[in-house]
Amino acid sequence: MKTSIRPGGRSARVRAAVMAATLDELARNGYADLTVEKIADRAGVNKTTIYRRWSDLDGVLAEVLAELGATVVVIPDTGSFDGDLRTLGAMVQAALTDPPVAALLTGLAAAAPRSARAAAVLRDFFTERYRLAAEIVDRAVARGELPPDTDGYAVIEAVSAPFYHRLLLTRQPLDDRLTTQTVLAATAAARSGAFIPHL
Amino acid sequence: MKTSIRPGGRSARVRAAVMAATLDELARNGYADLTVEKIADRAGVNKTTIYRRWSDLDGVLAEVLAELGATVVVIPDTGSFDGDLRTLGAMVQAALTDPPVAALLTGLAAAAPRSARAAAVLRDFFTERYRLAAEIVDRAVARGELPPDTDGYAVIEAVSAPFYHRLLLTRQPLDDRLTTQTVLAATAAARSGAFIPHL
Repeated sequence: MKTSIRPGGRSARVRAAVMAATLDELARNGYADLTVEKIADRAGVNKTTIYRRWSDLDGVLAEVLAELGATVVVIPDTGSFDGDLRTLGAMVQAALTDPPVAALLTGLAAAAPRSARAAAVLRDFFTERYRLAAEIVDRAVARGELPPDTDGYAVIEAVSAPFYHRLLLTRQPLDDRLTTQTVLAATAAARSGAFIPHL
Repeated sequence: MKTSIRPGGRSARVRAAVMAATLDELARNGYADLTVEKIADRAGVNKTTIYRRWSDLDGVLAEVLAELGATVVVIPDTGSFDGDLRTLGAMVQAALTDPPVAALLTGLAAAAPRSARAAAVLRDFFTERYRLAAEIVDRAVARGELPPDTDGYAVIEAVSAPFYHRLLLTRQPLDDRLTTQTVLAATAAARSGAFIPHL
């Protein structure tokens, strides 16, 4: 039996190459034509290596999103609720108009109904990020800008949802008008007490 | 060559049987395990008949949604903007917690990135319904309940988006709290002028 000198090192290198190749393929050609073969070619690894380690294309995409999810997210802290929400809206718009990110999320959402792993990675990615960003609302409540008991998670969800609705369903543009209206809407709604749990 | 007595009649019967069988399978078993074979079995037709007519599973789902889209939609008209939006929110919640409808939309959204037909049917279904429901906003503007120039389509989109975000991404429950908060949020946002086109 042949043994490689640094199996852990080689394994980590393969993983990094496959992750990078996947994002690169998604950026260049989107999700529609993505295959394990194309990722393997670009990464310079054998496709059987990918199948053995990640089972299928959905498994690769799930790992890429899990890795993105582990990166540090900077939560806006501009000093005002309006400013924070404007910055957050711009961040969501920027992320979802970045071709590899849009393609990755589109691909995982497409895989989720038939892949428990894709569904779990998506759910964890979003719920974790929304919980972190809810800090924006807690700070605004502390400053007296929003009613006490405002549900921070619900506010952040309301800022995000219209972007995903367009990305995944109507495929209309994620333009500046959508961003402005969504941010103004969530700001006014939060102020009005719409996100105080009533039920 | 054998000819059937009423080819149009048979064709229409096959179509009706396949449409009904698809909704029935979606209601019983959801989208995850749906196949053309199962639809064919339930409809009592040969699967090659389905493949010849609709190409694949996505084609069948697209036709089912196109048929649903052609049904008459009753737009709420309660006499007030708040009442109309509450009724609309309850209608969206009811539709998306109806197992066959939820499964159909989930399946088509999953197919859309790789099926131009699925993508087009989804886009048409939503944009057409939102345009019709925008009448709620036009009436509210005429009654002086909302600022002039409020974008009715954007208001309806804002009422729908959070439900689809949960259905397709986070898989959190489409419960009464979501409905109440979404309706109150859209109502307050529309009143505040958030949906007047600024850009």
